[in-house]
Amino acid sequence: MDCIFCRIVAGSVPAFKVYEDTATLAFMDINPLSEGHVLVIPKQHAANLWEIGEESLRDTIAAARIVAGGLRASLGLDSMNLVQSNGPWALQSVDHFHLHLVPRRKDDGVPLDWELTAGNRDKIKRCAEKIAAALAAKS
Amino acid sequence: MDCIFCRIVAGSVPAFKVYEDTATLAFMDINPLSEGHVLVIPKQHAANLWEIGEESLRDTIAAARIVAGGLRASLGLDSMNLVQSNGPWALQSVDHFHLHLVPRRKDDGVPLDWELTAGNRDKIKRCAEKIAAALAAKS
Repeated sequence: MDCIFCRIVAGSVPAFKVYEDTATLAFMDINPLSEGHVLVIPKQHAANLWEIGEESLRDTIAAARIVAGGLRASLGLDSMNLVQSNGPWALQSVDHFHLHLVPRRKDDGVPLDWELTAGNRDKIKRCAEKIAAALAAKS
Repeated sequence: MDCIFCRIVAGSVPAFKVYEDTATLAFMDINPLSEGHVLVIPKQHAANLWEIGEESLRDTIAAARIVAGGLRASLGLDSMNLVQSNGPWALQSVDHFHLHLVPRRKDDGVPLDWELTAGNRDKIKRCAEKIAAALAAKS
């Protein structure tokens, strides 16, 4: 078993666990972006959003919702980011699907903010048509 | 109806739609971080991850999985971020739950990357205990 997160699920690698159910596990990110940074994963291995099965994904987001409630209750939060990375150019560091829950606080300097800049409407429209056509072809 | 995304769902504000099912809608972000930046929302209004109902959330992530497949097929991607913001310090700009799907490409300059920096294990352990205790108290 080469996957570090599968090893954590199996119990052969330690982790600071905060939540577990039959399908999912949540534990602390040891490279936290902020205090309380948690990862939520499906126990069943899947590399990313393109590979994960629908039921496993549904269970993982339901667990994230529960853990988010625990983060708010225990840390007194009112702000948080959910982030998930897929593939090399998104800098995915472990190839086992994982949702980051990143608590946010005033002026925390967490590098997940961006300025809203309007795009070119014609270009966006053409892109939408391409995506919609691909989705219509699949259904 | 004050919510811009509820208006898009109702059809009273236009959007470049790419996918729709009974519970969800996906349309282009008009302030895109990269080409193909799509938002996936539940039709039923909920402000954020703390307010959304479990079924609505499950349906929204299932839709995001489908749209991600369409993005890959139409734009030839191998990388993507999923991002969701909650509350003022996460700079949530519309108070209707939305998942960002942000296509990533080599050297794209999209401001969603971070360096891995190890945290203090003792501090992380103490935080884990607090979160786990809050979750155990809820269940």
